[in-house]
Amino acid sequence: MLLTPVALPHASRLINHGPTVLITTEHQGRRNVMAAAWSMPVEFTPPRIAVVIDKSTFTRELLQASGRFAIGLPPAGLAELTFAVGSESGRDVDKFARHQLVCTPGPVLGLPLVAGCVAWLELRHIPEPHTETAYDTVFGEVVSAQADARVFAQGRWSFRDDNTELHTLHHLGGGNFAVPSRVVRAGSRDKAN
Amino acid sequence: MLLTPVALPHASRLINHGPTVLITTEHQGRRNVMAAAWSMPVEFTPPRIAVVIDKSTFTRELLQASGRFAIGLPPAGLAELTFAVGSESGRDVDKFARHQLVCTPGPVLGLPLVAGCVAWLELRHIPEPHTETAYDTVFGEVVSAQADARVFAQGRWSFRDDNTELHTLHHLGGGNFAVPSRVVRAGSRDKAN
Repeated sequence: MLLTPVALPHASRLINHGPTVLITTEHQGRRNVMAAAWSMPVEFTPPRIAVVIDKSTFTRELLQASGRFAIGLPPAGLAELTFAVGSESGRDVDKFARHQLVCTPGPVLGLPLVAGCVAWLELRHIPEPHTETAYDTVFGEVVSAQADARVFAQGRWSFRDDNTELHTLHHLGGGNFAVPSRVVRAGSRDKAN
Repeated sequence: MLLTPVALPHASRLINHGPTVLITTEHQGRRNVMAAAWSMPVEFTPPRIAVVIDKSTFTRELLQASGRFAIGLPPAGLAELTFAVGSESGRDVDKFARHQLVCTPGPVLGLPLVAGCVAWLELRHIPEPHTETAYDTVFGEVVSAQADARVFAQGRWSFRDDNTELHTLHHLGGGNFAVPSRVVRAGSRDKAN
């Protein structure tokens, strides 16, 4: 993994464009990984995000018991894996073993970061019982962020023709993922932001 | 506008892949449009979404006063407009007039739907004061959904080489938008879902 630290004020940009993510959790020796299409930043500083995780999932159980979770952004080459771990339950099978996932421990919380992803976030859970119950919407604050410098550097994504296999996945439904292969630039007079 | 109704159980799929949206609001003759990069579905049935709208914005004021809002999905050809209405405040200027926007009234709530978008949702606001205050996160339930049949039909997006100008925008920051023109298919043995 070509991990490069991402400054925390830039962490929310990693999911600004709506990618599907892999959520990893671990608690007292039990661990899981699942895919989630529904996530978004809610704040840049402090970097906070919201993600929808069904209350019936093993991930929710581990997340709420441990108070932490990690997010990885799978690129185009991991579409099959992403679809698979979004279709299985970790209660029934150790998905890390089944899919022979290689992981490294996150730098702050030690959570498993899935190799082959192009960005990783570690988050502390911000308990919001009502929102979790009513909308399955879970909030977290980013405490570490890293990215693959070939595709995210100086706080920005760089999707180019020479790194298409590192572009993120955006689930359309039914195992079809859109990949952001083209970049359109607007507001050329105000590009410093 | 080539409006085709979208069945409500399919409405959440319109934003499943993380597009940047235009939010339109109207209350007692005042109206506004802004861009929002941070939104996600939270439920398919009933179709509900969450979107981050800063509490200082004119849009939040109109939304909370009227209890309703609409969402349009701008395609690649509207990148300049999307960036512009995300950078101006509707308190200072009528953005509809300034950008010569053509709108049609939504079928259920009568909210302005921006011509040139490729999908439109009308939503009733679900008041959640704590989440709105703490995270600027606003929930809504979809009451009407429509899409341009050239790019979304039978409940599915169809991003093809012959309709690239209708592909959605995904904001990377600073006016750079990714466009998901390539589609990767996974789970070929389970494509019916």
